[in-house]
Amino acid sequence: MSDEPLTYPATGAAWAPSVAELMRMRFVAAGKEKPDLILRGGKVLALHIGEILERDVVISGRHIAAITPVGHFECDNVIDATGYFVAPTFIDVHLHIEYTKLVPGELARLSVPKGTTTVLADANCIANVLGEAGLDFMGSTTTPLRILRQVSHKVPQAPELELGGAHLTTEQIAARVQRPDAATLGESNPFNLDESSARKQVAAISAGKRITGHTALLENEPLWSYLAGGISDDHNAHKTRDVVERLRLGAMLTVMAGSMNDNTPEVFADIPALKDGLGHIAFCADDKLVEDLDRQGHIDHQVRKAIECGVEPLKAWRMATLNAASYYRVDHLIGSVTPNKIADLQLVEDLAEARPHLVLVDGKVVARDGVALFANTDEVPAFTRNTMHLHPDIDETFFSVNAQGDKAWVQAMEMYDGYFKRAFHTELDVRDGLVACDTDRDVLKVAIVDRHHATLNVGIGFVKGFGLKRGAIAATTNCENQNLVIVGTLDADLAFAARAIEALGGGYVTVADGEVLSTVPLPVAGCMSDQPWETVRDQSLACDAATRTIGCTMHAPFLIMSFIGLVGVPDLGLTERGLVETKTQSFTDLVLGRKGGLVCCRCPSHTHDIHRAMDPARFEAVAV
Amino acid sequence: MSDEPLTYPATGAAWAPSVAELMRMRFVAAGKEKPDLILRGGKVLALHIGEILERDVVISGRHIAAITPVGHFECDNVIDATGYFVAPTFIDVHLHIEYTKLVPGELARLSVPKGTTTVLADANCIANVLGEAGLDFMGSTTTPLRILRQVSHKVPQAPELELGGAHLTTEQIAARVQRPDAATLGESNPFNLDESSARKQVAAISAGKRITGHTALLENEPLWSYLAGGISDDHNAHKTRDVVERLRLGAMLTVMAGSMNDNTPEVFADIPALKDGLGHIAFCADDKLVEDLDRQGHIDHQVRKAIECGVEPLKAWRMATLNAASYYRVDHLIGSVTPNKIADLQLVEDLAEARPHLVLVDGKVVARDGVALFANTDEVPAFTRNTMHLHPDIDETFFSVNAQGDKAWVQAMEMYDGYFKRAFHTELDVRDGLVACDTDRDVLKVAIVDRHHATLNVGIGFVKGFGLKRGAIAATTNCENQNLVIVGTLDADLAFAARAIEALGGGYVTVADGEVLSTVPLPVAGCMSDQPWETVRDQSLACDAATRTIGCTMHAPFLIMSFIGLVGVPDLGLTERGLVETKTQSFTDLVLGRKGGLVCCRCPSHTHDIHRAMDPARFEAVAV
Repeated sequence: MSDEPLTYPATGAAWAPSVAELMRMRFVAAGKEKPDLILRGGKVLALHIGEILERDVVISGRHIAAITPVGHFECDNVIDATGYFVAPTFIDVHLHIEYTKLVPGELARLSVPKGTTTVLADANCIANVLGEAGLDFMGSTTTPLRILRQVSHKVPQAPELELGGAHLTTEQIAARVQRPDAATLGESNPFNLDESSARKQVAAISAGKRITGHTALLENEPLWSYLAGGISDDHNAHKTRDVVERLRLGAMLTVMAGSMNDNTPEVFADIPALKDGLGHIAFCADDKLVEDLDRQGHIDHQVRKAIECGVEPLKAWRMATLNAASYYRVDHLIGSVTPNKIADLQLVEDLAEARPHLVLVDGKVVARDGVALFANTDEVPAFTRNTMHLHPDIDETFFSVNAQGDKAWVQAMEMYDGYFKRAFHTELDVRDGLVACDTDRDVLKVAIVDRHHATLNVGIGFVKGFGLKRGAIAATTNCENQNLVIVGTLDADLAFAARAIEALGGGYVTVADGEVLSTVPLPVAGCMSDQPWETVRDQSLACDAATRTIGCTMHAPFLIMSFIGLVGVPDLGLTERGLVETKTQSFTDLVLGRKGGLVCCRCPSHTHDIHRAMDPARFEAVAV
Repeated sequence: MSDEPLTYPATGAAWAPSVAELMRMRFVAAGKEKPDLILRGGKVLALHIGEILERDVVISGRHIAAITPVGHFECDNVIDATGYFVAPTFIDVHLHIEYTKLVPGELARLSVPKGTTTVLADANCIANVLGEAGLDFMGSTTTPLRILRQVSHKVPQAPELELGGAHLTTEQIAARVQRPDAATLGESNPFNLDESSARKQVAAISAGKRITGHTALLENEPLWSYLAGGISDDHNAHKTRDVVERLRLGAMLTVMAGSMNDNTPEVFADIPALKDGLGHIAFCADDKLVEDLDRQGHIDHQVRKAIECGVEPLKAWRMATLNAASYYRVDHLIGSVTPNKIADLQLVEDLAEARPHLVLVDGKVVARDGVALFANTDEVPAFTRNTMHLHPDIDETFFSVNAQGDKAWVQAMEMYDGYFKRAFHTELDVRDGLVACDTDRDVLKVAIVDRHHATLNVGIGFVKGFGLKRGAIAATTNCENQNLVIVGTLDADLAFAARAIEALGGGYVTVADGEVLSTVPLPVAGCMSDQPWETVRDQSLACDAATRTIGCTMHAPFLIMSFIGLVGVPDLGLTERGLVETKTQSFTDLVLGRKGGLVCCRCPSHTHDIHRAMDPARFEAVAV
């Protein structure tokens, strides 16, 4: 956008004004040259001081040249803003675009009309499939959506526990974080204190970039050591006590409202407790599906929610704009209605409603009354397709779990909207030496299958929460390595789902009784559609509906099943190499043995929990 | 301080942790390694949320590794902070170190014990004498004072109006502003809308650096066009109405308290009017003499003053620390008591008193009860000396002003504590064809003499406000070009003062009746002493006292006379080439003619002021 050479890695340098633009801005503000556009007589949000002022916003090219008394300058091109608030557009400070199922240009058509024109995006899904080429593809669009990178911290996330897909080196990541298109180093595993992570974090700190974190339920030493590494924001905390603790420690709170959970009401449950911390809060969607963005909104949703919760409207708007721009160090470019800033603006009738009548990007009207006035003409390059590689021998025998006797205790996990994986033990029937699912108690089989290298690697577990009575559901969007994840009732259903999704080239499928009930094709890296967002929304709603016909009760089953694979957050994770205990970052047993008369998975922390009395020596040995 | 290669120009990159430091920080916070120091049981300022918490501050090397409950970790090296507040140290966001008359290492000995450990410094004085070599000398010290550069915007400030000393090119300045030691582009002339200034400002914006401004009494178009160029802070505004206007426009208000004026009480005269703007305010000294820093304090003075004015203590402390660090983009390094930050800390008994008992820099105690525990061992390189070059022929005839008749109207200016140069017209006696001063009405002669190139260039004017009854005072610290400025009663005194200061190699002199009454030798570039700050203070107080014996009534006459040269702020300026009207940035007459029966200097704006009725055509032609 600038005709200056990019010799500076400061975040957003590509958006800086050219010398010609800056000179013209000054002449326009001086009244020596005519403005290109004036937004006349609107109620301008002056967020630095916290006032609303009736003013003209005077535009020179891409920029705001001046804020003047109403009618001060003449212009041939005037938008009557009378009765509207004139506000900066919204910034999403942490988003995985891939989980919307849309390519960036389609996300733009969906979100820009809702006022969200800038996203800080961690493209760790595509990075796990296509490496740097994938990151480059996800980092830009010709549409009016600004994308700043959150450079994926580690690809794959846990090489010692998973095969994964593509790999990025420490040097590749450290180099990318210093680029002007990078705003932060992407979220990292809190349990990772190794030198490689330190190198990347030092690179980020040296480049003046923030370091994104997800502190889940961490407290004390695990939280302190995470923050001691320079982690500077958190989108997990939501209980007042956790939020307050993170604000006390200086971490930016990036309130998450995605498809799996909306933290906004909990974060603002006790506003007085947050004190000045209200100035250190921004918003993000993290993982939000196209159908939920459409139905509920993007950052506009969080602004509405926050105001509903009692946050002063100007403070809520500031969280969604200036707080974000300032903390991520682009407030000299975007995030406020002040001179020299890029004219990314929205006209809204009601601050509490936060539904823009007009959206401007680079000083041009790009959306009106919720409808994009631009097309998505981005190319989807061929290298992003045909990324689905399953081993030909995969059949139902591939998913069996062997055990002796007629009953077996297994280490299972529970999933629910909110996605945290709670570990529990349960006893299942064993038939012909194979452990069987129990649909009455909703204990189903889950499998993670390598879909990158066509190996025979599979990890198998048992999961509660999906409620399927028959058939299976499968997705190629397993977090983070984008493997194939399948939840089902019978091994034959799992095998059938695997083949169905292979035929699709990746995506979501719902199958039952040897039939494909519904699909969402995601041919772009196996995680995004190449279709308009409206089509993807309709396919998604149909596929969700199909899961309900076979008993599924979850709001976002395909997204939630994708998080069974995450090895970073409590209690268990599952990779194509097996079941992982997150706390110790080591493999643990699926079928449990017995010890001292008690069921035991022989995992250290489990020993820690239930065996301290009977095995103190071992307990001490493993105490963390 | 870091053992990593500096491939990143982010501000303060040299202070980033090394990989080893970061790994150790994490291990210390995790309780796996012993801390190097713990500040135990103090009242920690948690400025992001605005709370005070009893906590331990756990130090690992240069850094804060963790903030823990009291007594949580063991350590062999504990400082009992019980009863003390544990706060970040202060940041001065705009200082011309040269005007303290101290070299950086001596400023460190004076200011660090008062809690100010970081300064953003615009070394435009030495840049005007020694160019880039001067900037390099002023940019670093081996003492515990952090210096971030405000890269001088233009050297000389007005090449079309002054010879000046050294010159810097647009390219040199644009290159320097992207260096990690640069925080901002230095203050610029608001009337300058040329391409060179645009290039430098675009370089700063592209590098994510702020652009320092001084908006004096600007409003409407002149203010708007200045801000439209990306000027992002202001240390001039002090009337509530001006402060509010700048905050509305997003400019950071950097409250100035120097030797010439203290804006703090006026800025905080109506605190409710500033609203959220309190989060967009920081402090600076700008121009403050050693004797005033010693007597009154540095940023600690402004914190006391702000709290006296009714600012909540935590908010005042935040202005002096976190607000500054955040806005100038070093809050990931300094400015708060939070994990991963550099341990620049102070222990104070009373927030309203703001007098540190202990000051720590890089995790080490460097000052106790107002006394530095370190020496200044910085070298003063030879090239900074012998910069005083006067033409040999300069004698009293050199300072004469010719006029016909026995009376003459002259264009004079008034100076006072606060330094703004007010223009006025006055009639003086003419004796033997020479215009004479009038000590009764306190209209004295002022001269700016080229002291860089030993030419015969001299600019002469008449000035009110110094009150000298005899003799003269002179300084080689003329703003900005560091020429020789002399104020005196008789031409002979002016000539004698010139020779006296030449003998000194630069500095301040007070002379009368052919005698040198007192001096402050400033041999370092003619603007700084090579002596300990205590010596410079004593010399300065003596030299000021000497000016009072010859009638001077000003608090800081040598500093204030230095601003007669400034051509950027109202109404008049004086350079070695002549009298300048600031508004039109053009030369104007000293001895006035008559026009239409009225006194007239024939300067356009003067015409504008008094002749619009009688000369409308001309008025239109010159209206700005």
